[in-house]
Amino acid sequence: MGTRNAIDIERIKQSADYVRYLALESIERAQSGHPGLPLGCADLGVLLYRYILRFNPEVPLWPNRDRFILSAGHGSMLLYPLLYSVGYNISLADMANFRQLGSKTPGHPEYERELGIETTTGPLGQGFANAVGIAVEGKMMAQRFNEAGFNLFDYTVYTLMGDGCNMEGLSYEAGSLAGCLGLDNLIAIYDSNHISIDGRTDVTFTEDVAKRYEALGWQVDFGDSSDMETVSCKLQELKEAKGKPKLLILNTIIGDGLDQKKDTNDIHGSPAGLPEIAFFIQNSPALRELFEQKYGREPVADKKALEEILAERIKNQKTEPLLSFAGSDEFMREMRGGSRAICDEWEKRLTDYKESFPGKYDELSRYLKFALPAALHDKLLHYAHPKANATRGISGEVLNLCAGEIPQMVGGSADLADSTKALVKGSPYIKRGDFSGRRIAFGVREHAMASIGNGLALNKTMIPFSSTFFTFFDYMKPAVRLAALMKLNQLFIFSHDSIYVGEDGPTHQPIEHLNSLRLLPDLYTFRPANDIETAFSYLYFFKHMSGPVALIATRQKIEERMMGVVPGGLSREGFYQLFEKGAYIFYETGGAGEPEIILCGSGSEVSLARGAADLIEARHNIKVRVVSIPCLELLNETDSSYREQLFNDFRKPVVFIEAASHRGIHFFCHRHVVMIDIHSFGKSAPGKKVAEYFGFTPEAVYERIKKQLP
Amino acid sequence: MGTRNAIDIERIKQSADYVRYLALESIERAQSGHPGLPLGCADLGVLLYRYILRFNPEVPLWPNRDRFILSAGHGSMLLYPLLYSVGYNISLADMANFRQLGSKTPGHPEYERELGIETTTGPLGQGFANAVGIAVEGKMMAQRFNEAGFNLFDYTVYTLMGDGCNMEGLSYEAGSLAGCLGLDNLIAIYDSNHISIDGRTDVTFTEDVAKRYEALGWQVDFGDSSDMETVSCKLQELKEAKGKPKLLILNTIIGDGLDQKKDTNDIHGSPAGLPEIAFFIQNSPALRELFEQKYGREPVADKKALEEILAERIKNQKTEPLLSFAGSDEFMREMRGGSRAICDEWEKRLTDYKESFPGKYDELSRYLKFALPAALHDKLLHYAHPKANATRGISGEVLNLCAGEIPQMVGGSADLADSTKALVKGSPYIKRGDFSGRRIAFGVREHAMASIGNGLALNKTMIPFSSTFFTFFDYMKPAVRLAALMKLNQLFIFSHDSIYVGEDGPTHQPIEHLNSLRLLPDLYTFRPANDIETAFSYLYFFKHMSGPVALIATRQKIEERMMGVVPGGLSREGFYQLFEKGAYIFYETGGAGEPEIILCGSGSEVSLARGAADLIEARHNIKVRVVSIPCLELLNETDSSYREQLFNDFRKPVVFIEAASHRGIHFFCHRHVVMIDIHSFGKSAPGKKVAEYFGFTPEAVYERIKKQLP
Repeated sequence: MGTRNAIDIERIKQSADYVRYLALESIERAQSGHPGLPLGCADLGVLLYRYILRFNPEVPLWPNRDRFILSAGHGSMLLYPLLYSVGYNISLADMANFRQLGSKTPGHPEYERELGIETTTGPLGQGFANAVGIAVEGKMMAQRFNEAGFNLFDYTVYTLMGDGCNMEGLSYEAGSLAGCLGLDNLIAIYDSNHISIDGRTDVTFTEDVAKRYEALGWQVDFGDSSDMETVSCKLQELKEAKGKPKLLILNTIIGDGLDQKKDTNDIHGSPAGLPEIAFFIQNSPALRELFEQKYGREPVADKKALEEILAERIKNQKTEPLLSFAGSDEFMREMRGGSRAICDEWEKRLTDYKESFPGKYDELSRYLKFALPAALHDKLLHYAHPKANATRGISGEVLNLCAGEIPQMVGGSADLADSTKALVKGSPYIKRGDFSGRRIAFGVREHAMASIGNGLALNKTMIPFSSTFFTFFDYMKPAVRLAALMKLNQLFIFSHDSIYVGEDGPTHQPIEHLNSLRLLPDLYTFRPANDIETAFSYLYFFKHMSGPVALIATRQKIEERMMGVVPGGLSREGFYQLFEKGAYIFYETGGAGEPEIILCGSGSEVSLARGAADLIEARHNIKVRVVSIPCLELLNETDSSYREQLFNDFRKPVVFIEAASHRGIHFFCHRHVVMIDIHSFGKSAPGKKVAEYFGFTPEAVYERIKKQLP
Repeated sequence: MGTRNAIDIERIKQSADYVRYLALESIERAQSGHPGLPLGCADLGVLLYRYILRFNPEVPLWPNRDRFILSAGHGSMLLYPLLYSVGYNISLADMANFRQLGSKTPGHPEYERELGIETTTGPLGQGFANAVGIAVEGKMMAQRFNEAGFNLFDYTVYTLMGDGCNMEGLSYEAGSLAGCLGLDNLIAIYDSNHISIDGRTDVTFTEDVAKRYEALGWQVDFGDSSDMETVSCKLQELKEAKGKPKLLILNTIIGDGLDQKKDTNDIHGSPAGLPEIAFFIQNSPALRELFEQKYGREPVADKKALEEILAERIKNQKTEPLLSFAGSDEFMREMRGGSRAICDEWEKRLTDYKESFPGKYDELSRYLKFALPAALHDKLLHYAHPKANATRGISGEVLNLCAGEIPQMVGGSADLADSTKALVKGSPYIKRGDFSGRRIAFGVREHAMASIGNGLALNKTMIPFSSTFFTFFDYMKPAVRLAALMKLNQLFIFSHDSIYVGEDGPTHQPIEHLNSLRLLPDLYTFRPANDIETAFSYLYFFKHMSGPVALIATRQKIEERMMGVVPGGLSREGFYQLFEKGAYIFYETGGAGEPEIILCGSGSEVSLARGAADLIEARHNIKVRVVSIPCLELLNETDSSYREQLFNDFRKPVVFIEAASHRGIHFFCHRHVVMIDIHSFGKSAPGKKVAEYFGFTPEAVYERIKKQLP
């Protein structure tokens, strides 16, 4: 790669213009997309991928690669041309297929490490917070595995953020924690162009961004996109500076290279249009030559003729490929030799490391490729905690059982660890200069917690958990959604799960949250009723490692008789198989014949159903069934015959009890279904009083349903 | 009120200790609560309510009162004793009933202006952002109504925030906008005690808060809770300083006045315990005397005896009132005379204003007491937009119709006004020094937008709207929840409502959002199918003014034949009555007899149902009914006989079509219900392609249901 400071400004400019061309024409073909950022940041992108980043497109998962996170994800047409140019598995045809169904080039970058896409971005601020998480991963891996002479982990995380990212509170939260932790392996570049969608940013965003980041403990420097020589030096300096995360504020011009639309909000999110593209081509020596080679000098010199050429290209886009530019490809792919050498050297270092530190090497292998330890599998399968306890307490115990066998499990809470019980006991917090700990003090920053957790999970070495009161799920939802969208293995532990929270009142009592979570695709929500279901929820997460799991735990105790219940005669293995169907018969009155009523629900309402069952049996002498539904999503997905069996095909009343809002289409329910749920906000009073107020006692449930009984 | 700088430190201290006592004993009685903040900030609280704030407990809704917002809402036991002390309608008995069902003193303050509780707080950062909104209201009212010699509106907003509030991204967002707007009528006081729930804040929060706020354009000063003389002067100076919002960083000691638990996280959120309370009483001259008066000198001097006295008091709490302290009451209520005079003077000024500016006075009256203008009522009732259009476009037109007749309607979007169409045309943005505009450039700050909107709505003068893409509802959910909890009249306009968003892909396509919103109590979600339903949604909001409404609008066009459809023979008045039931028969095949199939849904899926109905009619020659459900919550609440009638009691198949996730208990649905919904994330492709992919075309719907047809 040669000396980094000796950069070839001329060829950077050529390649940057080629990036601009690819962005402009792809967006024009799609008639949809965001050219503003790719045009403004093309030079920076080329500089980064040609001279700064260490990576190897042939080994995209190289664990010590530098990362580039496009936090301003709408600028995806900056990323795709760069990845193509350096040799990732993205082709000109893929870019010509921008924003089409099933393409490798969707509107916003979608997590696909093999392609060089490190995370899904688009919702603003998320990529930046992910980058903070990746930087924490780097620090953790370094401290766990680096040895003298064996710097296995020393990668740098670069992230490109825009005005939008900076305005989002998420970036402030993540930036504040990054500053506290002194993440000097993180370099953020702020694409500062003073334009956002609605116009110039001075109507709403006049803060001193440099001073803000300094206040958060960052080192800040400045650059200009017209001077890559200086930017290159500054990035090199920033990389070497120790002790703080770094921000480079880069003055850019949105839509750089265009005529009328340059420096306007028109170019943020709409195709440039043919006259602007023609202007750009005519004024870019590299692109002008490229077009002249294909179409001749005269048509390219004539703006109208050039526009017609472009119109033809767009019209015939199915057969007309994007123009290739061998000169740029050659220049960009020169990084390959150097990069491959660095990557190869790393592989060799790893081999030596294996010899020198065989134990550590084995542990590293377990980080790089997770497998559930058999001993832990058995412990979870046979877990028992036979005393009355809150499921948050049980969860804390199970979490530590897991943490004991899975060293890559790290995490924390948003300043509520003592309440949610989600902490690795005996471990210190990570802190500036010491990342050996497994606890993260996220602070009262729920959103950053989940998004940093996503960052930690991206490379599939660390397995993060994060935790807060269930009502504050709302503060972190955008990042939970991205965990689901990327199927990241983050475990979310939410305690204080309903009205039983009591005295803290309606702001602290989740009502709509349970079903909001269940609506989210690709995330499984477990609300365990007892000790075994809690352990099985953890088992599900670690066994599948196929995406995020949310565990919803009680603040209040669950009575002792609910603990350790295994459905009739089943082995634990057999029980777990039923558990994976999402629901099972928790209790049934003995004797022959079909139950006259079925009570079902999740979490603490299974206890409630069990209590109501007692009353029904005592007062009516009929058979009752109680069905526990630890995971409604799994029950939805299981074979319908199992559901019919559980609920006896609605031949008799089925009472569904959950202290949560189900306001929706339940007027479509079968006439035998009775819903006992909550459609209003909670109340401030002791938990038992609130439960009485809302009718969540066995006696009140009995009163509601007694008319249905024979 | 005397000269403000001549404050009586001795009596402040006495009253502050009385506040401490009331907090300690109330929390001990409840065995639940947060003593840390009330103890740390009692002196400040007394200073504010005794010397600084202008208010009148006898006219709690006085529109020009100064506001005090306890953003750190867990410290509610600071607020209740202060409100009691100055004469609001909160009694010792109310405080003795702290955190009990139906009390005036719930765990966190709950919006009740008559009691002096200006907003609901608890979820951190919200009160601070509300305060920014209230400050905007103050500026808007001032500019609209103040005249030379008639400063009708010049109130100051004070907010007390803790470490938690400052760590939340929301406070950054709101603080950044406040700085940009130069809200010099806002004074935030930061209760800086370096302790949060999990321990000392230095593990996670080391930023330079003063520098951060300066970066955001604030004026910052410092104080110490042990020196109220200086704090008083500084607050006076800050109040008079012009051009910027102000932050006073106040060093405090959490649990101040206690023995062992002072300056520890133990005292944040748990009762202090009798030994600590006894220590406090023995060491507070005022409280010691109060207890000696009742229990004699010797028992109070003996710590064990005093603990026993306290134990007896707690044990007999039903009959034993909290101690009253005439000396403190007298001191605190001295503010009344001065305050009443200021309030009376204001009333007199208003009378003079009426004479001098009768037109303005009338307009002000309309702000202070909203009534839907009859002309607008008629325009909305008879609205028609007979061309194909997206409902976002129709919404923009209707919004401007409303804005034309309702000058107090103000709002904006999170940098997406051109896309959501939610803007008051012809109005400038509000900006530093000029708040005459009706547009607010919220920036890419969804969370602050909704929370500032809540602040604007609190005093029921302004009627705010806020807007973004529906997928970004997630970023603002915590504030939307509080709007619902407080039943604030904020209108939320969410466009780009489903997979039809198309190319921007899964991050921008809402899936779970529609039903998440519907789960929220006390908020009504309208997803109109056409022009009339859009206008009726606005009409519903302005007619009821009973809480927030969310309007969910399409990005894509709705076909022309869907527009202007009025169900068979109804007048617009009659139609609107049906609309308020949440659903109605949009279309039905002519001829006698019952339909063989019913298709229903909301928004653009009503068009889809209509298209599928055509196919069914053409291919089967049977009767089809299409039911539009603009508001599922209203349909849930209406009489069941109306629902039975709409769906013919499920005698025949009912097909429910919504391009949204309904993952939940739909396996409980009646066997005649067919659900056509979406349980996975969206795709990046042109909207029509995505709709085809997910089967949201008339032909695909037909294929799904044809087996159900006779």
